[in-house]
Amino acid sequence: MFALPKQRLTAFNRLTTLKRFSTSSKLLGSQTPKKHNGTAVVFMNMGGPSTISEVYSFLYKLFADGDLINLGVGRFQALLAKFIATRRTPMIEKYYKAIGGGSPILKWSTYQVEEACKILDKTNPESAPHKPYVAFRYAHPYTEETLQKLLDDGVTRAVAFSQYPQFSYSTTGSSINELWRKTQILDPNRTIQWSTIDRWPTHPGLVKAFAQNIKEKLLEFPEEDRSEVRILFSAHSLPMDVINSGDAYPAEVSATSYAVMNELNFSNQYRVVYQSQVGPKPWLGAQTAKFTEKIEEKSKGIIIVPIAFTSDHIETLHEIDIELIATDAKFPEKIKRCESLNGSQTFIDGLAELVSDHLKSGQLYSKQLPFDCEIGVGRDVFNHPSEFFGDHTKTIKSASEEKN
Amino acid sequence: MFALPKQRLTAFNRLTTLKRFSTSSKLLGSQTPKKHNGTAVVFMNMGGPSTISEVYSFLYKLFADGDLINLGVGRFQALLAKFIATRRTPMIEKYYKAIGGGSPILKWSTYQVEEACKILDKTNPESAPHKPYVAFRYAHPYTEETLQKLLDDGVTRAVAFSQYPQFSYSTTGSSINELWRKTQILDPNRTIQWSTIDRWPTHPGLVKAFAQNIKEKLLEFPEEDRSEVRILFSAHSLPMDVINSGDAYPAEVSATSYAVMNELNFSNQYRVVYQSQVGPKPWLGAQTAKFTEKIEEKSKGIIIVPIAFTSDHIETLHEIDIELIATDAKFPEKIKRCESLNGSQTFIDGLAELVSDHLKSGQLYSKQLPFDCEIGVGRDVFNHPSEFFGDHTKTIKSASEEKN
Repeated sequence: MFALPKQRLTAFNRLTTLKRFSTSSKLLGSQTPKKHNGTAVVFMNMGGPSTISEVYSFLYKLFADGDLINLGVGRFQALLAKFIATRRTPMIEKYYKAIGGGSPILKWSTYQVEEACKILDKTNPESAPHKPYVAFRYAHPYTEETLQKLLDDGVTRAVAFSQYPQFSYSTTGSSINELWRKTQILDPNRTIQWSTIDRWPTHPGLVKAFAQNIKEKLLEFPEEDRSEVRILFSAHSLPMDVINSGDAYPAEVSATSYAVMNELNFSNQYRVVYQSQVGPKPWLGAQTAKFTEKIEEKSKGIIIVPIAFTSDHIETLHEIDIELIATDAKFPEKIKRCESLNGSQTFIDGLAELVSDHLKSGQLYSKQLPFDCEIGVGRDVFNHPSEFFGDHTKTIKSASEEKN
Repeated sequence: MFALPKQRLTAFNRLTTLKRFSTSSKLLGSQTPKKHNGTAVVFMNMGGPSTISEVYSFLYKLFADGDLINLGVGRFQALLAKFIATRRTPMIEKYYKAIGGGSPILKWSTYQVEEACKILDKTNPESAPHKPYVAFRYAHPYTEETLQKLLDDGVTRAVAFSQYPQFSYSTTGSSINELWRKTQILDPNRTIQWSTIDRWPTHPGLVKAFAQNIKEKLLEFPEEDRSEVRILFSAHSLPMDVINSGDAYPAEVSATSYAVMNELNFSNQYRVVYQSQVGPKPWLGAQTAKFTEKIEEKSKGIIIVPIAFTSDHIETLHEIDIELIATDAKFPEKIKRCESLNGSQTFIDGLAELVSDHLKSGQLYSKQLPFDCEIGVGRDVFNHPSEFFGDHTKTIKSASEEKN
C-alpha cells in the first residue's frame, strides 16, 4: 500500500550523479567568476520503518536515544532499549502490517524535499543546484548514511532542516546532536558548512496548508453541522519531566494551533490535545483518545488534526485512524482525521520559502537554539550550537557572495 | 503603600449617582426617539484582599470555590476550605504586610475600567454612557455586591469583561458561574442583558503593552548584554488534572507569549513557565522559581513577565519580587520583573477597543465558551452559556439600534 514508487526509490541514487562543482575553483583569480558547489537541503525527522523487517531496529534505536527518552538507567539504556524493543516488536509489526507494510514517511519526505529543491533552483539561482536529502534518526536513511552521501557527493554547504515544525530537544535536538556526533566521525575536518532551520511553528506555508486541509475535511460533514464541528489539534505528547524541564515544545505546538485557528477566523471550537503516551510515567495531556471519548457524544463532529507531523505515519494511520476512530469510538461516523500535509502544494511551497529565506538571511540557527541546548541534557554533544554551526554573531556569506 | 487614592475609593460611590435613564421610555411611541440606559462595563477578576483583615475571608472563598480548586471532598469542600484558610492566613497576612498592607488589584482594576469607559464614551456614543464596575470573586467588591449595585443603578445592559486574558474554566469560568448564580438570586427576572468578553489572549493592545514593558525593562540591562537577556513569561500554574481535562488555559497562555515574542521580532530567548503551585498534587511546569534557579548562572540577564495578570498582585509583588528575586536568587542583580500592565495607556486603549468591538459585533460570548463549559465541571451552573447570555445564534441589537 505504501510501497515507494520507482521515481522515489531511486531518488538517492540519482542524487549521487549530480554534477560536482570543483571546489578548487576557489583558487582562481578574483576576475574569474567562482563556481560553487550548490546547496544540500537535508530533511531531518525521526523516520519510520519502511518495511516490517525494520521494525525492531527502529524501536531499538528509538528507545536507546537518551536525547529522546531518559529511561533512568544511565549507561545501561542501550541494554534496556533492547529489552523493550524485543518485547514491543511483535505488536508494532502488527500495526505496520495493518497500515500496508511500512511507514510512508520516507516516500513523503523524499517527495517534499525534491519538490522544494526544484522550486529553490528557480527562486534562488545563486545557491543552486539545491540537492535533496533525507536523514532519519531511527530508520533508513540514518543520519550517518546521509552524511556519508553528502561527503561522497562533494557537498560543502548544507541546511539541516528539521521536519518537526515545533522544537523539542527530544526530537529536533536529538537529530542535531546525532548529526554532530556523526560529523565528528565522518567529517572531522568539517568540509561541510552546516546551518539549520530548527523551528518554524507559525510559518505561513505550514499554517495555510493545515487550514486548507481542515476546510476540506469540514466539507465532509453535513452543511448544517459544519460550524459546530470541533477541531482537535493532536500533537505527540512528551513526559511531564521533559515538559517541566522547560522544553520549548508545548508552547510552540500551541502557537501553531492558535495560528491555524486565526487563519480560520476561529470559525470552530478547538482544543490542543496530546497523543501517543507510552509507559508508566505521567505525560502531558489532555490525551487525544480520552478527550475524544469524553466529548464525542455531545459533539456534532470532530476533526483530529495531526499538528506536529508533516506526513502520515503510524500515529496517524494506526493510532488515530484504526485505533481511535475505527475501533474505540462510540460514534465513529462523527470523527474524521484531517489529511496530513504529505503532498500539499501549499505546504511544499512553504518549505521552499523557508529554505529560501534561511539561505538569504545567512542565519546559522535560530536565536532560541542555544537556550534549548543549555536546558537539554544531551550526552556527547557540543555545549553551544556555535561549535557545530560556527559563530552565531557572524553569518554565512550568502552563496551569491561566495559566487561573486 | 497601596492605599487607594481618594478618587479611586469613591469610584463606586460616584457610580451610583450616574443619571438613570428611565426604562419606561421604551413605552413611548416609535416616533419619539427612545432613550437607553447606557452600558455597564464590569471588570471581573479574582481580586485580592485590600487590607490585612480581609486575608482570611479571601483565602476561605478561594479554597471553597469548587470551580477553581477541586479538593476532592465533594460537599465538604467548604469545611476543608475553612481549615486550609485558617492554617494559611498567618503566613499570607505576612506576605500582604510585606507588600504594603494589601493587594493593589482593586486600585488598578478601578483605574483601568474607568479610563476605558471614558474612551468608550467618545468612540461609542451609541452605547454611552459607559459605566465602570469591578466584580471580584474572592475579595470586595464581590460579584453579588457589584450585581446589586448594577440593579440599584438601573443598568439593563452589561458586559462581563474577564480580566484574565487567557481562558481557564477555573478563573473566567468561575467568575461567569458566580455571576450566573447571583443573578438567579438577585435578578431572577433578568432585567440586565449580559454579554461577556471571555478571552482575548492575543489582542493587539495586550500584546503591544507587554512588548513595550519588556523593551523598557531591557533598557535596565547593560547595552552589551541586552540581546542575550532571557524572557520568562510566567503564568499562574494549574493542577495537572485540570490541564489533562482539556482546559483551554495553557494553549492560550502560549499564544499570548508567542504573540509578544512576534511583536519583539523574537529578539531574545524566551520560555513559558508557570508559578504559584500549591499543595501536594502535580501542577504544570516548568516552575518559574526552579527554572530561574537552573538558568540564572549561565544567563546574562532574565526578565520575568507576568503574562496572565493585568495588574500587580501578591504573585508579582511578593512571590517574584521578594521571594524569587530578593530572597532566593543566587544572582539577584541579573533578574528583573517586567512592570505589570497596571496603568499602561497602551493597555487601557486596548481594553476600550476590545469593549468597543464587542459592543459593535453584538456577540454575546465567544465561539469557544460553550465548549469550555461542556468540559468544565461547575456545580449549580447552566448547561450552556446561552441560558445566561441568550441564544448565541441571535446577537444583541446594538445600542444604537435600541436607541433609534
